[in-house]
Amino acid sequence: MKIAEVCMKGKLYCVGVGPGDPELVTIKALRVMEEADVIAYPYADKDAKDSTAYEIAAAASDCVRTKESLPIYSPMVLDAEERMKYHRMAAASIEELLNADKSVAYLTLGDPTVYCTYTPLRDLLAKDGHLTEYIPGVTSFCAVAAKLGISLADGAESLKIIPAAVGLSHHEEKNNLVFMKAASRMKALKESELLAGRQVYAVTDCGMETEKIYRDVKEIPDDAGYFTVVVAR
Amino acid sequence: MKIAEVCMKGKLYCVGVGPGDPELVTIKALRVMEEADVIAYPYADKDAKDSTAYEIAAAASDCVRTKESLPIYSPMVLDAEERMKYHRMAAASIEELLNADKSVAYLTLGDPTVYCTYTPLRDLLAKDGHLTEYIPGVTSFCAVAAKLGISLADGAESLKIIPAAVGLSHHEEKNNLVFMKAASRMKALKESELLAGRQVYAVTDCGMETEKIYRDVKEIPDDAGYFTVVVAR
Repeated sequence: MKIAEVCMKGKLYCVGVGPGDPELVTIKALRVMEEADVIAYPYADKDAKDSTAYEIAAAASDCVRTKESLPIYSPMVLDAEERMKYHRMAAASIEELLNADKSVAYLTLGDPTVYCTYTPLRDLLAKDGHLTEYIPGVTSFCAVAAKLGISLADGAESLKIIPAAVGLSHHEEKNNLVFMKAASRMKALKESELLAGRQVYAVTDCGMETEKIYRDVKEIPDDAGYFTVVVAR
Repeated sequence: MKIAEVCMKGKLYCVGVGPGDPELVTIKALRVMEEADVIAYPYADKDAKDSTAYEIAAAASDCVRTKESLPIYSPMVLDAEERMKYHRMAAASIEELLNADKSVAYLTLGDPTVYCTYTPLRDLLAKDGHLTEYIPGVTSFCAVAAKLGISLADGAESLKIIPAAVGLSHHEEKNNLVFMKAASRMKALKESELLAGRQVYAVTDCGMETEKIYRDVKEIPDDAGYFTVVVAR
């Protein structure tokens, strides 16, 4: 294993703990939880302070129950303005810890980049100049497919993830796109109308020594390697 | 951590080792690699026997280099018939191990249910009556988003994963669907034309004690819990 960095003081980590099975927590998530000064987690029920993410993390590592914790009241509210009120309250309580040079691990179910309540909270703190980092996790849909013993997509099939509670109508939804294995088709992809008008990103060899990060479609070389993933939002 | 089962003799595990960073291997993947009798892995270059999945696994656990291994020649060939020839050869060599009551961990990059070369191999062995199991992993696109510090989808946005090498034309592609957070909309989803003519599956509370598995849309209760993921192929 390559030498891992130690959690930085005053930094917020959003840790994906996977979909439920404590064994599906990654080594990295485990390390960040163990090194962080404070474990923060959202809960929706004011009385119980139950948090599925917290329970998974606590089952994966004994450190979780013993160190300083910050339960964050995050009720499911439909009103956007009211929701932002809770995000601002959460940001303020986390900011206090970051300003005291503490590292905070904010726990989230599944993976933090897929329908995670953390996004607005993170944006508020990043806007205030705080360092933040996502720690990826196993998504619920991959765990579900594994449990069923089926594959989600093969060959030329595409795969669409839809938030059913809000996205059952075709017309309302906005589609974000991920392109895998572009390889020899990179030039065609870059010129494709699928990318027109979108913010385009790409990473080659993510997490490896040869990693390269692009934040503009023009930066992506036509001969970017096989392990290049293109994201268009 | 709940008590984990020991790898079963004569069983094939398809282990997702994540996208590159050895720290993104899950605890479960680590355990299965450590308990399995044989580590199998695909390689595409006949001379080098290089395998990215193998390198990641070996960096995550010392056991990988020391135990019996089975490199499987899996060149990227476009011809479907020729590709099946290689799958049959791979299946035969794995079958020999399974028949000798050995447990085999077949390593794959990212997650094994998303564009994994393992699927046909697994189908061949399952058809012959062998036990197989998927061990989920972190997908490349989640790791890429984490690296970029962006979210892939929030709120009402949908997310579409496209194999760029073959799926740049809208018309050719077949869309598989994943519905997350159906919650109170489950009845509407079940009746939605989005599911018509598809094989529908669902899992509630995947990996938890309260887990429930459905393999037919009619089985899914209208009040299935919040953590229900619906897959339609």
